[in-house]
Parts: sequence; structure tokens; C-alpha cells
Amino acid sequence: MMDMWNVGVDIGGTTIKLAFVTDDGLFVDKWEIPTNTSENGKHIAKDISYSIHTKIKENGHSLDHVRGIGLGAPGFIEMSTGFIYQAVNIGWKDYALKEELEHETGLPVIIDNDANIAAIGEMWLGAGKGSKDLLCVTLGTGVGGGVIAGGEVVHGITGMAGEIGHITVIPEGGSPCNCGKTGCLETVSSATGIRRLALEALNSRPSLGLLQTMYEENGDISTADIFNCAKEQDALSLRIVEKATFYLGFALANISMANNPEKIVIGGGVSRAGETLLEPVKRYFKQYALPRVYEATDIVIATLGNDAGILGAAWLAKNKL
Amino acid sequence: MMDMWNVGVDIGGTTIKLAFVTDDGLFVDKWEIPTNTSENGKHIAKDISYSIHTKIKENGHSLDHVRGIGLGAPGFIEMSTGFIYQAVNIGWKDYALKEELEHETGLPVIIDNDANIAAIGEMWLGAGKGSKDLLCVTLGTGVGGGVIAGGEVVHGITGMAGEIGHITVIPEGGSPCNCGKTGCLETVSSATGIRRLALEALNSRPSLGLLQTMYEENGDISTADIFNCAKEQDALSLRIVEKATFYLGFALANISMANNPEKIVIGGGVSRAGETLLEPVKRYFKQYALPRVYEATDIVIATLGNDAGILGAAWLAKNKL
Repeated sequence: MMDMWNVGVDIGGTTIKLAFVTDDGLFVDKWEIPTNTSENGKHIAKDISYSIHTKIKENGHSLDHVRGIGLGAPGFIEMSTGFIYQAVNIGWKDYALKEELEHETGLPVIIDNDANIAAIGEMWLGAGKGSKDLLCVTLGTGVGGGVIAGGEVVHGITGMAGEIGHITVIPEGGSPCNCGKTGCLETVSSATGIRRLALEALNSRPSLGLLQTMYEENGDISTADIFNCAKEQDALSLRIVEKATFYLGFALANISMANNPEKIVIGGGVSRAGETLLEPVKRYFKQYALPRVYEATDIVIATLGNDAGILGAAWLAKNKL
Repeated sequence: MMDMWNVGVDIGGTTIKLAFVTDDGLFVDKWEIPTNTSENGKHIAKDISYSIHTKIKENGHSLDHVRGIGLGAPGFIEMSTGFIYQAVNIGWKDYALKEELEHETGLPVIIDNDANIAAIGEMWLGAGKGSKDLLCVTLGTGVGGGVIAGGEVVHGITGMAGEIGHITVIPEGGSPCNCGKTGCLETVSSATGIRRLALEALNSRPSLGLLQTMYEENGDISTADIFNCAKEQDALSLRIVEKATFYLGFALANISMANNPEKIVIGGGVSRAGETLLEPVKRYFKQYALPRVYEATDIVIATLGNDAGILGAAWLAKNKL
């Protein structure tokens, strides 16, 4: 008897990640194709379908043993219908992706946004394994999030649940955010935000120290530089890390007073800082959450990296189709 | 054929509210008994059992047609086991309430905390009717909350979900809260908090105006006075209402970026202020939430008053037993 396979698809602005995943969460095959954003992304469904069918043949598998496709995409998505209101990076607007992809592939399709499938992935096989009450945070260019309660993703009425990057942490006088507001968590705790805080400090009041030297030598610094220098006890870098993690710990504590998660899983580029990030985040979390909350919440680093999305998407196919 | 009845029980510090409720949410009978907190509340289960059985007989109903008991209590409760970790007002500590009450009554029992059953009540038959993504806020002595996502109460890992009164809205320099932290939402947006803000202002910089006059004449003011004077455009009262609703709108916006509710239902004594409360809360909510969130969220006043709890408890019996 052939195993049932689940197809996981994670659509990004430049590449589409695909995988065949067994019900046990094992990769049978994993590959990527480029994201063709021309003509408002109208070729993408065809590209995905062609790629999946080719790979099934290559693997000598039968379409009858493919349960269906779980898919994650960036943007505003209505999960129940698989309708994309808007995915700016891809070019879709009011696009019936689920319908289109089911038509192309002949397989059932289920869709959620990229942050939510990553959260599901970490819940299934990553740092959130075994936990049903989870908050996943991605610290990258922006700050993304996925909320899981009782083992189910919280979507909210317009699919905006988990948009924790736009929680306001500086109610007055904060920096402008891409969203049009000011003082969002994203402006101070994303990779971009942390780097901005450091550059502002480096430019406004040059000091002695590791980060300043690095900046003067290379003409630039990265978020990784800041955490590396903080690890070396560079005073300015420590100050920046304290500031970024203060706001993150504060926001996570406030979300946790509403949702009381068992685990908070932090992923994205910034999470590579590991303990240098975790220690102050936990400290500020504890400062702003009640004991019955902070004692029960484990704050950990994500473990699945770029695979979180396709695994979460495969989980959707396995459990929701 | 006899109707199936659900028993709703709402335990408070001074009275226990009870009701027989049909599957359609109609009251068959509704009554109260005093809460006997002597000997750490050990008589309460017996009192409830005796009261229910007496009323069933009085109503000429049969125990076979009572589905079971849904019950709400204040404190820290593990819903899955019906175990009370602590209910300070009642005297219970590490108390197996569900087991005890099932033993006494011979009926199946399901338990949740008082804030959650009130939220369920409003979802079933009140201001949240028809909505599956709900945030209920009670502005009374403290600030309580209940979070519902996808039609299910969010409990979190230690039942602390919905404790939004202890969301920190003033990260530095806020007033002390009963919980031991400072700057909690409860310190500025509860009835107690609003009155405190007003008294501080009245005592520190006496001004002309309606509230000041009232204070000097009566030697005291209530939260209702503040909202009444605000409605009459009293400058100080307006300032206090703006402050209290700023923090409330800000906190609700931040929770909504995580949970994206369809409705926010505001209950408790303060909610009697109606539009005088709602207008500024909505304004600040809009200031701090993204358009896709605030456009989809209806902020409304609770409609069930003191019945929300027993009705929510009856819903639990109906749907979870």
C-alpha cells in the first residue's frame, strides 16, 4: 500500500517552496521554483500545478495517494474560501487562488497566510511541539505573528489575527511604520527596526566601542553585528538590544494576558541571536505579565527555519482536507 | 415529551444565581441563594444541590430531563477537570468543585470562570449574538475579560486568558494595581480606577465646574457622576473620561491586532455610560488599530446585564455536556 502524501506549498515573493510530506511529517521530496509575478501572478497556479505533477511522476507516486495541497501565501486571505484579497508582493488582488489551483491540479486545496502556516509548522514538528496554545513571532524585515489557541489557528473576523507587528508599543511620538501608524512593535523590534535604532544612535552621538568602530570601518552595520557586539558587552549595542527587547517583552506580556500561551516561539533572522535575545525578552516579559502567566509560558527559539511554512502547509492538507 | 433543561449557576462572593434554561435560551425559572463562605466554602456544593433539587420538584420537572449543570465561579479554574486552584472571595483552595457537585447532585457538571461564562452568555443571546470572534470586557471594580475565537472560549495554558485588566498600559510610573504590578489597565479604566483619577484631580488642583461642585457638596463622587458630568460637558470630567478611554481604546486595539475580534462587548457598571463611553473608546481604538481591524470590529455595550453569567453557564451545559 502506498503512503498518503500531503503537498506543502509556501509562496514567497521570489521563490515558491514545495514539498511532499508524509502524515508523520517526513519530507519525501522538497524543492523550489521561482515565483513568476508577471501579469499580476496569473501564471503561479499553473506553475505550481505543473511542478507538482512532474515531481509526482518523477517519484513514481500516484495522484490517488496525494491527499491534497496545503498552501501559504503572504497577504490578506480568507481561509474558508481560499480567496486572496490582496498579496502585494505577488500581485494578486481579489484572486480565487484555491479555486484556480484546484482546477489546475485536480487536487483539493486549503490556504492560509504565511505567518499562520509557519506557526502550525512549529506547533507540529518544531519548538512548539506538543503545545496547543502557542504564539509564534517572526522577527525579520517586519514582525509577523501567528496565534494558536486550543490547537487551532486564531484567524479573527478578517484574517488579521496575529498581526502583532502592528501592536502599538509607543503610543505617542514613535517612529513611522510602513502601515501608516507610528510606534508599532515592528518599528523597534524587527531586524529593520533594531538596525534603525542603532544607526540613529551611531549617527547622533558617536561613542567609543565595538559597534561604532565596526560602523566606521564598514560604513554599515547589520542587526547580527549589533547582537554580536552586545554579546561582547559593547555598551551601545547592549543599550539597543535592551530597548528592542523591552518593547518585545512588553508586547508579548500584554498579548499573553489576553491569550495565556504555553509557548512563545520566536523565529526569523533576529532569532539567530539566541540567548542574547531571549534573556532580556524573558526578563521584560516577566516584568509585565502576572506570575500565573509568566510561570507557565516558555519563550523559545524556532527550530524549523525555512521549513516551518511547508510543514505547516502540509499539516493543513493532512488535517483539514 | 418534556423539554430538556440546562442549569446555569453563577457563583459570586455574596449570592449564587441559578436558573433553569431551555435549549432556546429561555428562562424557566431564575432565583438566588446566599453564598455561604463559612468554613472555606465547604457548604456551597450542598447548598446548590439542595436548591436545584427543591426547584425541580416545585416545577414538577423530572431529573431525567435536566441535562446537567453549567457553572461559573470567580478565581483560577481548570476547566477540563473542574478543579478550583483558588477562589479568594469564596474561600476555595485546591478544591474539586466539579467532582463535589456531581456527587451531591447526581448531575454532570461543567465549570468555567465567571468572566468566560459572561462572555459566552453575550455570544449566545446578548450583544455578541451571531459572532464567533468576540472579546468581552467587564468594567466594574476591576477590569475582567473573556476571549472567544472561532466560537470557543480561549482559556490558555493556565486559564488566565482574558485577564485583560492586567495588560500594562503605562509601562513606567503607573499607579499600583491590586495584582502587585503597576500601570495595569484596571488602574485607569475600571470604575475604581476612573474614580481614583477624578479624585486625584479634584484634590490636587480644585477647579470650577460641575464635578468639583458635586464633590464639594457631597464629599464624594461616583464613576456615574463623572460620566454624567462629562455628558454635560464639564471640562474636568471630560478630561478624566478621555484618559480612561484612551487607555481602554489603546489596549483593545492591541488585543485586536492579536485576535481580530468581530465584536467587542463592554459590560459592567461603567458600561451604563453608553455613548459617553463608547464614542471616545471607538476613537482611540481606531487610532491604534489597522484599518482592516477597526473597520471589522463593532464595539458595543453588553445587553444581558447580570443574566449573562447564568445564560453562559447554561450554554456550557447545553453544548459541552
